[in-house]
Amino acid sequence: MSPSPVDPDVDRGYIVPVGGAEDKVSDIDILRRFVALAGGRAARIAIIPTASMLADTGSRYEELFRGLGVGAADALGYQTRADTSRADWMALLEAATGIFITGGNQLRLSTILGGTDVARMIRRQNAHGTHVGGTSAGAAILSEHMIAFGKEGSTPLAGGASLAPGFGLSNRVIIDQHFRQRDRLGRLLGSLAYNPFAIGIGLDEDTAAFINAEDSIEVVGSGAITIVDVSALTHSSMATARENEPICMIGVKLHILTNGAIYDMRTRTASPPKADKELT
Amino acid sequence: MSPSPVDPDVDRGYIVPVGGAEDKVSDIDILRRFVALAGGRAARIAIIPTASMLADTGSRYEELFRGLGVGAADALGYQTRADTSRADWMALLEAATGIFITGGNQLRLSTILGGTDVARMIRRQNAHGTHVGGTSAGAAILSEHMIAFGKEGSTPLAGGASLAPGFGLSNRVIIDQHFRQRDRLGRLLGSLAYNPFAIGIGLDEDTAAFINAEDSIEVVGSGAITIVDVSALTHSSMATARENEPICMIGVKLHILTNGAIYDMRTRTASPPKADKELT
Repeated sequence: MSPSPVDPDVDRGYIVPVGGAEDKVSDIDILRRFVALAGGRAARIAIIPTASMLADTGSRYEELFRGLGVGAADALGYQTRADTSRADWMALLEAATGIFITGGNQLRLSTILGGTDVARMIRRQNAHGTHVGGTSAGAAILSEHMIAFGKEGSTPLAGGASLAPGFGLSNRVIIDQHFRQRDRLGRLLGSLAYNPFAIGIGLDEDTAAFINAEDSIEVVGSGAITIVDVSALTHSSMATARENEPICMIGVKLHILTNGAIYDMRTRTASPPKADKELT
Repeated sequence: MSPSPVDPDVDRGYIVPVGGAEDKVSDIDILRRFVALAGGRAARIAIIPTASMLADTGSRYEELFRGLGVGAADALGYQTRADTSRADWMALLEAATGIFITGGNQLRLSTILGGTDVARMIRRQNAHGTHVGGTSAGAAILSEHMIAFGKEGSTPLAGGASLAPGFGLSNRVIIDQHFRQRDRLGRLLGSLAYNPFAIGIGLDEDTAAFINAEDSIEVVGSGAITIVDVSALTHSSMATARENEPICMIGVKLHILTNGAIYDMRTRTASPPKADKELT
């Protein structure tokens, strides 16, 4: 799906993919920052725990967000496509100032919510200023094309990454998560090689990309974001490589960005964290 | 150590780092190619199994090379620094048309042979036209700076890679091996970040870089070579990041090169395999 049209008088809400494990560290900076964007004490957070098979994921995030002082935090426990017609949950989505999608299996998100009014509402709300975050599977689902599954390792292999349609809040990016922890550069490269229009965002755990309305990314967290830019690719063997063969890719640009660094997706330029000294 | 001066009338021999496991596949293309360079039936191969703790590594490579029809293949079983004074082995090194260094632990190579006449002889022979190959640890040792050990994962971490002096046949590269199989992009990036002068060569298993006298690399094998070029780095937090923090690196160039692709280290340009169709 493509992003909903943006009202020229209203900024799109932030899109905040998180690399996973943001709830497992003591200081939960990323969620605190998300809450601040969503209005702090006035924030109304709708939580979508559908990706998870654990019964307590929704209530755990309710507690996390309430612990950060929000006005309301409600888990919408969509388990089937029929659930998506619940009017009470739809009202909570519509009233939300922040929507947060938990981790689990991104194919549960796409198969249960894809093409429903819930996915449409999330997209429309984001276009009208509601901030939408997601962690792990919830990060992957945010873009138009998402990685459904793939092979580990740094070298891209033909057929080594499988794409599926996501919720489509952004059509500029392909997101991968647990990036360093699960060795996923190869599958991200392979995903981008299918069609080099998108920017690859590889998110380490406890690390988030805060993407503003101008498509500028700020890195928040203790890990790194690997930006993969294949727009200047001069050669790719993607179309001719046989299954499981490595893909030849010439001209990949890579930026490893840490807390405070900025990447402007429109100009495709990176700026270091202000705290860093310049390279001498 | 730096490379020995090259006689202007003689081409430097090939330098052939291999990513490991080149002996475990049925067709051993890489060793066959190495033997052809070294003279085929007239080839005299000196094998250095010092990195390995297995007693039969030397004899196994003798058999492999003899199976490829060479004129002579002799393992020089250096186990101690005292062994390096053996005149019979030095004579074999001097007569060799190809020298092959097996896998194991690169710190055994550097600690047992570093600074000895054996290391000097290997360097001098290469400068005078003898081809020198090495696999795994034997690949790492070929360059001036080698990765002694490091952490897995695609994101570079401060202190995540430790360098040690190698044999110094080339001072243009830092080599890493088992690249895809052991998830080593981060430690290669971190190694290059110390001083961005070198070109990073990440070798998948069963994949070799045939580096000719003009410092042009041809890829041979079933995997890929990841070329990491940090010469255009505009920012690095290497000097300021604390231990185990991710390193911010802006402006990394990456090429994933497969069998038949060429990388010219002097111009830092890559060419696709002739067999590949151009990107359309």
